[in-house]
Amino acid sequence: MEMVSHEKVGLMSGGFVWVKGLFAKLVEVASKTRALGKDDPRRVIHSLKLGLTLTIVSMLYYYKPLFANFGVSAMWAVMTVVVVFEFSVGATLGKGLNRAFATLFAGALGAGAHHLAALSGHVGQPIITSIFVFLLACILTFMRFFPSIKAKYDYGMMIGILTFSFVSISGVGDDEILLLLQKRVSTIFLGVCVCVVISISISPFWAGQDLHNRIALNIEKLALFFQGYGSVEYFKTLQDREAKDDKSIQAYKSILKSSGIEDTLYNFARWEPGHGCFQFRHPWKQYLKIGALTYQCAFRIDALHRNLSSSSFQVSQEIQTQIQEPCMEMSMETGKALRQLVSSIREMTQPTLAEIHTNNSKAAAKKLKASLKSSRLWENCDLLTLIPAANVGTLLVDVVDITEKIAEAVQELASLAHFKAAKPAEAAIQSEKEKVEPNIGVSFVTIPIGSG
Amino acid sequence: MEMVSHEKVGLMSGGFVWVKGLFAKLVEVASKTRALGKDDPRRVIHSLKLGLTLTIVSMLYYYKPLFANFGVSAMWAVMTVVVVFEFSVGATLGKGLNRAFATLFAGALGAGAHHLAALSGHVGQPIITSIFVFLLACILTFMRFFPSIKAKYDYGMMIGILTFSFVSISGVGDDEILLLLQKRVSTIFLGVCVCVVISISISPFWAGQDLHNRIALNIEKLALFFQGYGSVEYFKTLQDREAKDDKSIQAYKSILKSSGIEDTLYNFARWEPGHGCFQFRHPWKQYLKIGALTYQCAFRIDALHRNLSSSSFQVSQEIQTQIQEPCMEMSMETGKALRQLVSSIREMTQPTLAEIHTNNSKAAAKKLKASLKSSRLWENCDLLTLIPAANVGTLLVDVVDITEKIAEAVQELASLAHFKAAKPAEAAIQSEKEKVEPNIGVSFVTIPIGSG
Repeated sequence: MEMVSHEKVGLMSGGFVWVKGLFAKLVEVASKTRALGKDDPRRVIHSLKLGLTLTIVSMLYYYKPLFANFGVSAMWAVMTVVVVFEFSVGATLGKGLNRAFATLFAGALGAGAHHLAALSGHVGQPIITSIFVFLLACILTFMRFFPSIKAKYDYGMMIGILTFSFVSISGVGDDEILLLLQKRVSTIFLGVCVCVVISISISPFWAGQDLHNRIALNIEKLALFFQGYGSVEYFKTLQDREAKDDKSIQAYKSILKSSGIEDTLYNFARWEPGHGCFQFRHPWKQYLKIGALTYQCAFRIDALHRNLSSSSFQVSQEIQTQIQEPCMEMSMETGKALRQLVSSIREMTQPTLAEIHTNNSKAAAKKLKASLKSSRLWENCDLLTLIPAANVGTLLVDVVDITEKIAEAVQELASLAHFKAAKPAEAAIQSEKEKVEPNIGVSFVTIPIGSG
Repeated sequence: MEMVSHEKVGLMSGGFVWVKGLFAKLVEVASKTRALGKDDPRRVIHSLKLGLTLTIVSMLYYYKPLFANFGVSAMWAVMTVVVVFEFSVGATLGKGLNRAFATLFAGALGAGAHHLAALSGHVGQPIITSIFVFLLACILTFMRFFPSIKAKYDYGMMIGILTFSFVSISGVGDDEILLLLQKRVSTIFLGVCVCVVISISISPFWAGQDLHNRIALNIEKLALFFQGYGSVEYFKTLQDREAKDDKSIQAYKSILKSSGIEDTLYNFARWEPGHGCFQFRHPWKQYLKIGALTYQCAFRIDALHRNLSSSSFQVSQEIQTQIQEPCMEMSMETGKALRQLVSSIREMTQPTLAEIHTNNSKAAAKKLKASLKSSRLWENCDLLTLIPAANVGTLLVDVVDITEKIAEAVQELASLAHFKAAKPAEAAIQSEKEKVEPNIGVSFVTIPIGSG
């Protein structure tokens, strides 16, 4: 009796554990789902948009008058929606146009091949057709390896092979083939049109806008690093610095992890029509250039950060007092220059004020070099404690160079994309403030940043 | 008369220029094609394989007895080949299994939904069906955003939406639906099977093997850098060094450019069955760990290389003689350690000898630190000429640390994947050599390791 009841209890508690585990799993999935949606609410909107588009197209299927002469081919429209509807407008347009035109051209080619093969009689037809299919499949598959084709027409190549085989193999007469082709092309065009219209009309996600924002955000992350280091004393110990908001300082790390995304966005943005502040032939390629420079800057910043936060980093008081000021100044000014570039990109105005800050940081760099050269610094101090500090100095000088290159690239973007001039009023206020505020360092020019 | 003949000449020369331009373009495309094929001949083989598979499946279409009860549905097999046949076995298997099982499950679900909707009569059916389609499309589309699902089941999710809509919308009776579904599933399974069989049986390209080779190659590139720098005198001028084979030294740069490829290969390799020396559950994840460390090492090497090849890099004779030796030794030993790891990975043997070299380079690092500390070094020399040299030294020490981590990760891989022990004969020869060759450094510690 007892054993049986024991078993029962064991079974029940086992079941209870199982239910508990399932419940915990469900809660975990729910919280992950929530986090995913919260992280980027556009994901939820995209899912709803796709559901809506699919429903609309499948409703059309039920609405007989429209599809009466399409018949089963109407399914192609549904398929097209599922395959073509992508997150951004550019991706949807690219895939849609690829699908539509590849179907059109390869379909016509397939009809031609079918006609040619039919001429060779009942026995020869399969052989000739197979040779055609083999050749076209080989050529198009190999073409997909070309980087330039892969970037823009990869999907088109695949659909090309598909449609060509589909049409040329189909064992029906020439007239029927043309009808089949006509149905397929028109339903696919219909599907693509619905996708593009919904993608653009309901809360559109532009890859170009994304690329633009992303580049600005990445430069801002660099600025955060410099301003974070510029505002506190430079050679604080690790503990002191960790107390400060270290997260914003380390934001640059995300730049290093996601360098491929810009290329993808660029490939999508090229398909997009003019939208918002962007014209049709917006110089998207320039963003890649800025992105690459930003990556390089983050790369060096990482070395700088590793140096500053390494446990063996100790700097004597003497050195600190000597090189702290120019280091802080360089950091601060570079941060300000980068912030100017960010607001210039965000508001699409000419980055006129960034140059002042770049010049300031260059002046500070000169000062730092002079400090390092002066014999006062390295008298009576351990070389091993000097090296890390000097190291930080040289890395900073290096970073100032790259910031200048970024500023040049943004300037180039501004002239290529015809950014409007910065408001003269703001610039005036700016230069006014410069006169009033006293300079702190020798070559330290303070330029408070307006919203320009 | 003259004008007319002039025009003629102009027209002819214009035509000639056009033909010449076309010819030049053709030659360019041909040479690009050749380069692409030569760069990786597997591309040509892959194209031929796809052509062959497609031809086989389309031949089956003509061979009536097999397809008699499939009818037009046989097209699904052709489509499946075009969509599923990918470069590597893993990618083909992954896509094929996704397609086959997503079709099966979503088809069954769609048939159920169709049956349910049909219960609600002629008016209610379209509405109920649309609601089902909308809900499923939204949920599956959102699920595609989960990173873990995106990595393995992205394609399956898409095919799931497609098949579900396809089946549930189709305006036919329940019996017909089951027949349709059966045809669709069986043709798709057939297509996937042919793809997988051809992909594996004719010169298979395994993503796992690729990943394995790639990691070994990347470590070899690092080794090339160190051995390149270790063999020439360390602080040569830029010109001297450029004369030497600079290309092999800079091979590491390709590691920085292509960091995403390993993740892709990993995702494909997970689908692959055991092949060659790899068992089914080979620890592919460990390769990602080694890859990340390799990337970090290349990252630091880049800083080192930039330092050494910068135009402002001048080192006085005194410093050279002082720190040249330990630097060269560290470089050489690190290079040797990495080479050992490479051959250990390539031959799938335990990396027993790498540890000796890692220890040697650590010893040299200690020596370098001592040199930098000694006051002799920085008496009577310009600090600015000392800093770059010291910088190089600290970077080298940093790199030695990472090499040790790489060695540990490879060791871990060797024990996870049960690499066989290194041949005792080789180890004996090696330790023999160690004994004969005199130690160069002061604190050079030789640790002969058995074949454990």
